[in-house]
Amino acid sequence: MSKPKLHVLKIGGRLIEQEDHLAEVLAHFLQKDGHKLLIHGGGKRASELEKKLDIPTNMVEGRRITDAASLEIVVMVYAGLINKGLVSRLQSMHCNAVGLSGADGNVILAHKRPVKTIDYGFVGDIDQVNTHFIEALLKANTLPVFCAITHDGKGQLLNTNADTIAATLASAMAEDFEVHAYFCLEKNGVLSDPEDDEAVIEQLDTLTYERLKADGTISAGMIPKLDNGFGAMEKGVQEVVICGPDSFLSDGGTKLKH
Amino acid sequence: MSKPKLHVLKIGGRLIEQEDHLAEVLAHFLQKDGHKLLIHGGGKRASELEKKLDIPTNMVEGRRITDAASLEIVVMVYAGLINKGLVSRLQSMHCNAVGLSGADGNVILAHKRPVKTIDYGFVGDIDQVNTHFIEALLKANTLPVFCAITHDGKGQLLNTNADTIAATLASAMAEDFEVHAYFCLEKNGVLSDPEDDEAVIEQLDTLTYERLKADGTISAGMIPKLDNGFGAMEKGVQEVVICGPDSFLSDGGTKLKH
Repeated sequence: MSKPKLHVLKIGGRLIEQEDHLAEVLAHFLQKDGHKLLIHGGGKRASELEKKLDIPTNMVEGRRITDAASLEIVVMVYAGLINKGLVSRLQSMHCNAVGLSGADGNVILAHKRPVKTIDYGFVGDIDQVNTHFIEALLKANTLPVFCAITHDGKGQLLNTNADTIAATLASAMAEDFEVHAYFCLEKNGVLSDPEDDEAVIEQLDTLTYERLKADGTISAGMIPKLDNGFGAMEKGVQEVVICGPDSFLSDGGTKLKH
Repeated sequence: MSKPKLHVLKIGGRLIEQEDHLAEVLAHFLQKDGHKLLIHGGGKRASELEKKLDIPTNMVEGRRITDAASLEIVVMVYAGLINKGLVSRLQSMHCNAVGLSGADGNVILAHKRPVKTIDYGFVGDIDQVNTHFIEALLKANTLPVFCAITHDGKGQLLNTNADTIAATLASAMAEDFEVHAYFCLEKNGVLSDPEDDEAVIEQLDTLTYERLKADGTISAGMIPKLDNGFGAMEKGVQEVVICGPDSFLSDGGTKLKH
């Protein structure tokens, strides 16, 4: 028996702030045939709120350092403002969305990243996904909407990268579903020329990926996203697409290949 | 066939800020036999955050006026910070909690309160409760945790009084469940002498309620809570108890009687 389809879309923080684009992307997503999961990033709102509250935003290698005050901010902005904003918007589009953090339904169990050279603070590395609860929500015809907050099962919320959550959820669901994962970033896909936004690579295999990493065509920021994507394919995800809002709408972007 | 038991507990904002008390109250709640729902208020955190951000807190007759900036704050604090804090705490107590606003699963549909003499802003009066989704969560052995945020189905989140949400959810669930509702406030119950915190009325019927309202024994702040409670009993809720953290722990407080 063929597995039911599941479409997993990750949207970034900047898209969430672009009302018109966001509405189009969500409408296109809802038209897809099969079950759906949405994962969203945070964007500038958390940093803006920290600034207004005089909480310093610490970044190391493009990753946020999450101290106790920052954790409160990201929980408020990601799990509160952005998550419930998306849920109420989806409801207005006749989609029965349910907003979740990884603590809700014990869906994503993580542990605080051990301190080696850098102490990332309250940042969670994922240990386990409770697919049963997600499946129950899908069977109840709801669309789970995940923010990038996890928990450790001991009462501690943790901040986890949204791309990682999307890749991990897609991989975990691949056992029972035919999963199609779309990472909607800013550019329209992986570029063969970093200076040319139109130079989207249609299909990217692992050999070409290694070559483009080695010659510096693929930038540092894209590497963890592609590693997540290729990792998801190895774990049985049927299709992984790196796209932007425009290429998502035209079913374009960069498709990853083994 | 007898209906399954459902215990509905509403906790106020002040209790949420008292770590030790909160832990005891939640532990006692979890010991109750049957399904459970938790509804929480907001407390001072929203007002504190508004103050830090120089957003004026407007109150009329003890009710918050919710303009657009205030709505963002309450969504962040209620649906984000407090809700996810409670969920992760319950998870650490081996309770599979799921945090929800009224938008999630379209559980509580409301409309913006019409402007008569006062414009309350983005305040929602409840129209409808989607008991099916709540029942699905209870059957999946999860404990739904509601914050005091609803939505209008058209993409607008709304701020709704937490006591009203608790009474409305208790009433809606009474068709299929034997509902026991506990409103955990600050005092240990309804007092026969407002100056004496020990003078808890054990059972309060509607006639006595009318008399104590008329002679001023029952204060203005308690009246909407008791109206909610008596309203829930009229709609089939088996038991309504007005209590405080201490009397909740000793299964005391004021029991309402027809």
